[in-house]
Amino acid sequence: MGMLSEGLTQVLIPAAALVGIAFALLQWYLVSKVKVSGDSSNGYSGKLIEEEEDGIDSLEVSINCAEIQNAISVGATSFLFTQYKYLSVFMVVFAAIIFFFLGSVKGFSTKSEPCTYSQGKLCKPALANAAFSTLAFLLGALTSVLSGFLGMKIATYANARTTLEARKGVGKAFITAFRSGAVMGFLLAANGLLVLYISIILFKIYYGDDWEGLYESITGYGLGGSSMALFGRVGGGIYTKAADVGADLVGKVERNIPEDDPRNPAVIADNVGDNVGDIAGMGSDLFGSYAEASCAALFVASISSFGVSHDYTAMSYPLIISSVGIVVCLITTLFATDLSEIRDVSQIEPSLKRQLVVSTILMTVGIAMVSFFALPSEFTLFNFGTEKAVKNWHLFFCVTIGLWAGLVIGYTTEYYTSNAYSPVQDVADSCRTGAATNVIFGLALGYKSVIVPIFAIAIAIYVSFSLAAMYGIAVAALGMLSTIATGLAIDAYGPISDNAGGIAEMAGMSHKIRERTDALDAAGNTTAAIGKGFAIGSAALVSLALFGAFVSRAGINTVDVLTPKVFIGLIVGAMLPYWFSAMTMKSVGSAALKMVEEVRRQFNTIPGLMEGRAKPDYANCVKISTDASLREMIPPGALVMLTPLITGTLFGVETLAGVLAGSLVSGVQVAISASNTGGAWDNAKKYIEAGASEHARSLGPKGSDAHKAAVIGDTIGDPLKDTSGPSLNILIKLMAVESLVFAPFFAAHGGLLFKFL
Amino acid sequence: MGMLSEGLTQVLIPAAALVGIAFALLQWYLVSKVKVSGDSSNGYSGKLIEEEEDGIDSLEVSINCAEIQNAISVGATSFLFTQYKYLSVFMVVFAAIIFFFLGSVKGFSTKSEPCTYSQGKLCKPALANAAFSTLAFLLGALTSVLSGFLGMKIATYANARTTLEARKGVGKAFITAFRSGAVMGFLLAANGLLVLYISIILFKIYYGDDWEGLYESITGYGLGGSSMALFGRVGGGIYTKAADVGADLVGKVERNIPEDDPRNPAVIADNVGDNVGDIAGMGSDLFGSYAEASCAALFVASISSFGVSHDYTAMSYPLIISSVGIVVCLITTLFATDLSEIRDVSQIEPSLKRQLVVSTILMTVGIAMVSFFALPSEFTLFNFGTEKAVKNWHLFFCVTIGLWAGLVIGYTTEYYTSNAYSPVQDVADSCRTGAATNVIFGLALGYKSVIVPIFAIAIAIYVSFSLAAMYGIAVAALGMLSTIATGLAIDAYGPISDNAGGIAEMAGMSHKIRERTDALDAAGNTTAAIGKGFAIGSAALVSLALFGAFVSRAGINTVDVLTPKVFIGLIVGAMLPYWFSAMTMKSVGSAALKMVEEVRRQFNTIPGLMEGRAKPDYANCVKISTDASLREMIPPGALVMLTPLITGTLFGVETLAGVLAGSLVSGVQVAISASNTGGAWDNAKKYIEAGASEHARSLGPKGSDAHKAAVIGDTIGDPLKDTSGPSLNILIKLMAVESLVFAPFFAAHGGLLFKFL
Repeated sequence: MGMLSEGLTQVLIPAAALVGIAFALLQWYLVSKVKVSGDSSNGYSGKLIEEEEDGIDSLEVSINCAEIQNAISVGATSFLFTQYKYLSVFMVVFAAIIFFFLGSVKGFSTKSEPCTYSQGKLCKPALANAAFSTLAFLLGALTSVLSGFLGMKIATYANARTTLEARKGVGKAFITAFRSGAVMGFLLAANGLLVLYISIILFKIYYGDDWEGLYESITGYGLGGSSMALFGRVGGGIYTKAADVGADLVGKVERNIPEDDPRNPAVIADNVGDNVGDIAGMGSDLFGSYAEASCAALFVASISSFGVSHDYTAMSYPLIISSVGIVVCLITTLFATDLSEIRDVSQIEPSLKRQLVVSTILMTVGIAMVSFFALPSEFTLFNFGTEKAVKNWHLFFCVTIGLWAGLVIGYTTEYYTSNAYSPVQDVADSCRTGAATNVIFGLALGYKSVIVPIFAIAIAIYVSFSLAAMYGIAVAALGMLSTIATGLAIDAYGPISDNAGGIAEMAGMSHKIRERTDALDAAGNTTAAIGKGFAIGSAALVSLALFGAFVSRAGINTVDVLTPKVFIGLIVGAMLPYWFSAMTMKSVGSAALKMVEEVRRQFNTIPGLMEGRAKPDYANCVKISTDASLREMIPPGALVMLTPLITGTLFGVETLAGVLAGSLVSGVQVAISASNTGGAWDNAKKYIEAGASEHARSLGPKGSDAHKAAVIGDTIGDPLKDTSGPSLNILIKLMAVESLVFAPFFAAHGGLLFKFL
Repeated sequence: MGMLSEGLTQVLIPAAALVGIAFALLQWYLVSKVKVSGDSSNGYSGKLIEEEEDGIDSLEVSINCAEIQNAISVGATSFLFTQYKYLSVFMVVFAAIIFFFLGSVKGFSTKSEPCTYSQGKLCKPALANAAFSTLAFLLGALTSVLSGFLGMKIATYANARTTLEARKGVGKAFITAFRSGAVMGFLLAANGLLVLYISIILFKIYYGDDWEGLYESITGYGLGGSSMALFGRVGGGIYTKAADVGADLVGKVERNIPEDDPRNPAVIADNVGDNVGDIAGMGSDLFGSYAEASCAALFVASISSFGVSHDYTAMSYPLIISSVGIVVCLITTLFATDLSEIRDVSQIEPSLKRQLVVSTILMTVGIAMVSFFALPSEFTLFNFGTEKAVKNWHLFFCVTIGLWAGLVIGYTTEYYTSNAYSPVQDVADSCRTGAATNVIFGLALGYKSVIVPIFAIAIAIYVSFSLAAMYGIAVAALGMLSTIATGLAIDAYGPISDNAGGIAEMAGMSHKIRERTDALDAAGNTTAAIGKGFAIGSAALVSLALFGAFVSRAGINTVDVLTPKVFIGLIVGAMLPYWFSAMTMKSVGSAALKMVEEVRRQFNTIPGLMEGRAKPDYANCVKISTDASLREMIPPGALVMLTPLITGTLFGVETLAGVLAGSLVSGVQVAISASNTGGAWDNAKKYIEAGASEHARSLGPKGSDAHKAAVIGDTIGDPLKDTSGPSLNILIKLMAVESLVFAPFFAAHGGLLFKFL
């Protein structure tokens, strides 16, 4: 047994979660001190008037901001509620599927069964596992929805405040955006931990000593989280990019008006999209990763010596790691908000990067402590039918290598997507010869950016797999996600800044303000790419851990590529990311075409719109995005949800294992390259627009041929980086967790086709 | 024993090869009857003058054609010779590596060793295998070079002749282009078979009864063939696309002059590129596939009952299949050249498609006959350490399913890349809203086009693997390649027509002629895509067969994804196609930028160039393409050649097996989607230009905004479809065959890193 007592563990985990929630609320309070409505007296201070001399940043502007913020918030809330209506139908149907599939494993018998792993002991009936898996699924789904919704609320609360603070300087605006991101990060991390913890406590009342059944049922939590994330990412991604691409194609390219110009009918839809796609979708996504990594680790632990000997503290190791992570991120946040100050645009990116380094270093210490205090010095782990002897410092290395692999992925992503380095500058330079070379260079950049992350993931996998088998992979994933609060904070910072810029433009604020928000936004593009890098890297580890858990649960001990069943799974699995991307890209393209037609129609038929004398019909564009998103999210969603069910039922667990491995190794590459290509194009465009160097000015200014070529690249990158790319990590995770949840059914009744042949 | 006697087999194979060569020469003779030089009396007949009334198609035009053809031919020959100079250095160095690595397996001992598979018997020393593998490598390399070179010679001989025949109507031009393609197809297929057959006969003089050693050494033939193909495809691909992209960006986009306009300084380089890239590169590529599939099948057969019982005829089954293939293709060709006639542009594509169907149906009969006569009714095949009992009709199904899977891939490719169907029309339609939507739709199309081919490959793999283990896969690959002569004929037809159009433009022929060659070319884009589809599909099967042979030879019986060594190989292997594509795309991009600068410089500094009063400096552009191609082909070449060596030596055979499986399942997807996206963009552009339907006319004419957007897509597609895409199938094949050749070394001395850890 480790040194940490069971009682202390039971206090420590919820305490950390509550501290996280309290900290999030504190940050929210600090953000709320910036007033947006015109009626308040301390909306802007005397200091502000000293610094800013542009007359237009007046009371009227503040009222404008409040109005726009309100429109965005109402639009986002209404979209999410409509989406949730659809999703609730899905949840009920899928919950029923889970219950019936898992219940049928032993023919809905209510008798206790011999345990799968601890032979000789009696475990709870399969019907109970079916019921509790279904319950866990619903809990996970609700927590995921809550995470996305809260994130969206915070982001729409923060965007106008960031704009207004930009009047006081870039530092103030940065802190507001960053604090708001932190609210989301901490709420999500703490919430996810707390709900999972409470679920385990409650499930235990029924399960008692049957930890095998308990943690098998808990995996439903991960499935619920990720399935909501899938629809959130895909639906939100289609919504936001249909609006964005449509707005840009007519506004920037045809009408030559600035981005986010209030005359553009699609502009509100575009800003709503940032919040439902990048914020709510991403929140659900990372919550899903976190839930799945925890579930995979807990499941493998429950069939290892921790579970067999009922060592509660060691069993809770994954949860304790996450608890310590919340505390570490709390300290890290202070470095950005209180221990340093941004005085200049050039300090934004280094400050965000420092967040990554600080949290990683602190967390390494935290992991060492947890591994030393919570774990017995030696124990055994389940390893595909055999037991592997492991020491506590082995697990320290597993978690740590996951954590540091995340940092490497983050830095690589930054290198390839920030316009401070040569890759993006090369892409910008290629705009000289037009859009075609821009696209060729951008695609090549995305492909190249895959190399280092894949090596980092491969090394993390090799080390953690060698040291602690599948459990090692699961805790490595948790290590990468342990600083999720900080990761989410810097990730959410991006769309908040993007929106802040949009509001500044729409409210008619001065050019200076827009420059500041643009600088925040350029850093935000990079951090968004970093966030996606983390999401993908952790998804790779999580999927592999889930894959291992699935294989263990399905009762197969090898997945041999040299058998036809596995190999066809592998090659078809590797194809799925392409099929999925084809659907999502086409959806964005078609919806954008509709949006373009509508925006053109409005420009052509509403008199005085171009002159700013008439208001566009924003609602119609919102409706186009909403309808497209809800309709188009179903086919890719069905592809992901049905593939494991059909493959497992018809072809059996070996082929399904092949499909999971294939989609994992192929999907990671597609996802990373798509995200980075898109991020690079966006920042190449911003590089030309900002004109901060001699080289950049030689390509600009806005409206030059090179800039036009850059805008085309940016537009192409939109669906790559915000729709298909980030959805792919959900594809690989979700198929794995779904396979794990349904493993008992597939093991009992799967492979019908081969049985008939 | 089968019914076919050993003696008859020994006659049948070389006879078929010689018939193939004779038929190729006959086709060449028929093509040569079209005279290009102005001095000949029957250059164009009275009939021609009746049909054509445009005065400009005069004697002068004919002389022009002769000159241009000569310039292209000289340029292509000079480039290939320069390339071969570099390649000869590589060949010598790599031959030395093969000899030393394989010789060191038993410490350069000259003593006979116990056989690996037939324990108890004595086999030839490892040193002899090293020497003969090296020899086979050199033979394969030389045959590959010869195949590419002959193809180029024929194509440059045929292009102007096709142009001139276009004056007599589209049917005549089609036949000339198609016959020329057939020359290449038959020469290659027959040549590859003959050299392989003779090598086996000669090697046998030394090896005698040691078939294990004999066929192990013969695998060097495949390695030689594919390594030359790699450099041919990559070097040629960079050459042609640097010129093409550079010419288009300045000529079509900036200067608004037609494609292939003689005022464009890069136009000769562009046309040379078609011949060294699409023709010579592709010829080497498909020859490599054919050589590797044969070697993989022969190797597996040699360690199966055929080899053990020394059943010569059954052992030669793969070669007999290829022999029958030549005869079948010969009959098929007559359908296009003699049994039907093209009267209208709309008949071109159906006629080419009919080639595929006819050859597939006839070949199915041929396979049935060979399987019945050449094979014993029952035998056993080596299956990773065990023996699998197989019947002759099992092998019939294996070969046939490969053949028909090829047809499915061909038809799918046609559907996604021909502008007669909705996918390409949708892409063309998306040009309405600009280049960005065109690119988004094009990428989505490419991703989607992967689905059916992957299912076809998966089914072929499952059936042939289940029926006859790895030997089944190898003969399925041979089945797909059995109609290689026809496949190559319709594939080579594409670049020949493309060049014919270029020559028509450059020689100043009338608009009507150009319309005809454009129609030939549009069909050619589709057939080129079909050819690439075949190349990729067969590469997938070939690599899997080689992979199986490698695993057998390396002495491992499972490749378990659930071991860390294999999994990291899998994920890194899946990354390699991206790394490789990043290199090749960037190379094309950079070289194109240089080309653009040179072309711009010439337009700006040569007075009277735009007005047609001065001649551009074609040679400088040729030099830029040549230098770029030779310099830039080295890094991707090194990546492919060194990966198996480094992985095998440092990480051992399990990790290498993972790398091969990963690069196979990921590379196939990237290759198919890249080829089809590029093909679709090219034909979307041609669709708008041709304006054959109401819809097409609403997007055009040339120079409209939609057309400009289509040109951007076409330019982006160039490196995708002609450089990175088709090179990827060589990547996956080559790594597999290299691993197989070096397998004895890796098995004996590999995995150094893990041994030290």
